[in-house]
Amino acid sequence: MQVYADHAATTPLKPEVLEAMMPYLTEQYGNASSMYGLARSAKKALEAAREDVANLLGVDKRGIYFTGSGTESNNTAIKGVLTALSRKGKHVITTAVEHHAIIHTLEHLRKSGHCELTVLPVDEYGAVSPDDLRAALRDDTVLVTIMTANNEIGTIQPIDELGAIARERGVWFHTDAVQAIGHVAPDTQNIDMLTLSAHKFGGPKGVGALYLRPGIIIPPLVDGGGHEGGLRSGTENIAGIVGLAKALSLATDNLAENTKKVSAVSETVKRGLSEIPYSHLTGHPEKRLPGTVSFVFEAVEGESLVLGLDAKGVAASSGSACSSGTLDPSHVLLAIGLPHEVAHGSLRLTFGEENTAEEAEYVVKAVAEVVARAREMSPLWSGGKPTERFWQNM
Amino acid sequence: MQVYADHAATTPLKPEVLEAMMPYLTEQYGNASSMYGLARSAKKALEAAREDVANLLGVDKRGIYFTGSGTESNNTAIKGVLTALSRKGKHVITTAVEHHAIIHTLEHLRKSGHCELTVLPVDEYGAVSPDDLRAALRDDTVLVTIMTANNEIGTIQPIDELGAIARERGVWFHTDAVQAIGHVAPDTQNIDMLTLSAHKFGGPKGVGALYLRPGIIIPPLVDGGGHEGGLRSGTENIAGIVGLAKALSLATDNLAENTKKVSAVSETVKRGLSEIPYSHLTGHPEKRLPGTVSFVFEAVEGESLVLGLDAKGVAASSGSACSSGTLDPSHVLLAIGLPHEVAHGSLRLTFGEENTAEEAEYVVKAVAEVVARAREMSPLWSGGKPTERFWQNM
Repeated sequence: MQVYADHAATTPLKPEVLEAMMPYLTEQYGNASSMYGLARSAKKALEAAREDVANLLGVDKRGIYFTGSGTESNNTAIKGVLTALSRKGKHVITTAVEHHAIIHTLEHLRKSGHCELTVLPVDEYGAVSPDDLRAALRDDTVLVTIMTANNEIGTIQPIDELGAIARERGVWFHTDAVQAIGHVAPDTQNIDMLTLSAHKFGGPKGVGALYLRPGIIIPPLVDGGGHEGGLRSGTENIAGIVGLAKALSLATDNLAENTKKVSAVSETVKRGLSEIPYSHLTGHPEKRLPGTVSFVFEAVEGESLVLGLDAKGVAASSGSACSSGTLDPSHVLLAIGLPHEVAHGSLRLTFGEENTAEEAEYVVKAVAEVVARAREMSPLWSGGKPTERFWQNM
Repeated sequence: MQVYADHAATTPLKPEVLEAMMPYLTEQYGNASSMYGLARSAKKALEAAREDVANLLGVDKRGIYFTGSGTESNNTAIKGVLTALSRKGKHVITTAVEHHAIIHTLEHLRKSGHCELTVLPVDEYGAVSPDDLRAALRDDTVLVTIMTANNEIGTIQPIDELGAIARERGVWFHTDAVQAIGHVAPDTQNIDMLTLSAHKFGGPKGVGALYLRPGIIIPPLVDGGGHEGGLRSGTENIAGIVGLAKALSLATDNLAENTKKVSAVSETVKRGLSEIPYSHLTGHPEKRLPGTVSFVFEAVEGESLVLGLDAKGVAASSGSACSSGTLDPSHVLLAIGLPHEVAHGSLRLTFGEENTAEEAEYVVKAVAEVVARAREMSPLWSGGKPTERFWQNM
């Protein structure tokens, strides 16, 4: 059996999305900035996509800007705000569990003297405390950036409440909603800026969007011909943008049904994996993405679990797939208080609506076997238990 | 008859390219940064594309970085070099005829104090003088950026000679080769950095590449998970990248044959349009892109020509299509010495290998009719000639 259980890394392009893209990959190839009929069709498709995305997010279409990725949207927001508000200050507040697209960007800016950074801690479930945010805000704070849902453990932050706190103090609030959009209903009430990425919800790779509340003006990351209201120059990827809008529309229309399907699979897997001895669910027990099943298994290495599962036809990941070739333990698992030794034993299974009940049963069996086998060979495992408990409160 | 004569704005995606992309838009949807079989296929396709592009350009594959557009490549190169070499200086040399992706980027950096700029003039054909470059180089010059071929008038610069002059002085040389790659043989001997864009040679929109000579290390424009050797983070657009490589391969394999086809069409059109009274070919008479036919017609507006041609089924442009919604006369045409009044009357027809001899004849007839009609209504035209000559040496 082949089971794709890494939807947080990327999702299959939905056939309906590809179908919507096809005209723009074939006869409708016009450059949206030109003046003739073919170009006007492209422009029309571009603006229809913008309107659709805005409506689906419940925001003003003037605030939707298409980019080349979620990462680019995050870079545009952060670097843009720091430049736009440089007279006010350079203090940014973020959290210890953000995606590398946020953390590395801010760390580089901090090192080069372009920002001061407060990194909010999270609790054992990966949640940020609104009180911590309130206490961290300063007069020279120009940006708060907090992800909507975590890519490794699925924890959903109280974004609405956090956004309201920033707004009270007149500070712009950005959320990296790459993992959330298409999977949970967006709540954009108190949000000033939002990042999304098409390939996380059945759309194509190579296209993302940034929402900026109208009134927010930041300089571009990519200068040039003045496309996307001057925020992001470069010939528009019409096929990709049409695909993004179509995928978001499908995800939104089927949200309730998909959540039900995905939750059923996740619950089966969670229940099954909980029965493996010395296993622990990571992330919040309830406030989490419906498709994310994240565990640590004591006395094993996550990498070997992933390879063992691959051999059994299951595509899974250990921590985030977005950071290439690093063997460092996940910063997210360290932030929720796991010691290095335990954080290395993490497994992330992320399901989509095409996963079935049979697949869920198969995954449980496969993980149990792979964990058992890894423990047999582990120097940290003996006589049916870990030789040492690194995390006493587990 | 429908004639697409705006290949410099964008080209139709070649069916063979789409075919090569299709597996990555359907079953091969893996994230190249993950560890299982599906991801390894994606990674393999990514690295094969990198190797193909490097071989086709005659450069080291370690120097090929995929981006979201030619514009992004240009921004990455310019901003990256200015940061990497900030201790050496901030003087950049460019030309008066660059694409907006170069000019606007440098202008913004100059205004914010991040660079000092020398803009080299061009001669009446749009060519840069090597002597001018030699004279402009300073001890604090960190970058020379000169396009390989112009997007409006097609003039090809003596890139090899210009690159050698920069190299002699130890200054990095970047070329925006977006209009040239796929259309003329690349000469990368004396080039340190090169920008290309897939959709200009039969590939998809939304993907470009930047070549950096190995040894050149610049910081990323887009920070994050560390993709593309850390230069450009964001989940790789495998379908787009595979499409870019395939399109470049097709363009290179068929370069001689395509050049012949395209030149035949261009020559017919050039000859035909030269017979229209008070018309003038712009750009270099020989050292030009084979597909670019650029003219100015006295006493008419280019915009009205484009609209008139659209009504006759011909897709054309007036100056660059990459700059949305501006009515300023082209900076390129002003740089070659045309007065405002004449520069407004520009028409760019850019052909591809699918254009036919019949289409060429049709275009000549269509342009002649549209120009004649525009002149009938022009206050600047009377009795079969312009009421005033704005450019005495024409």
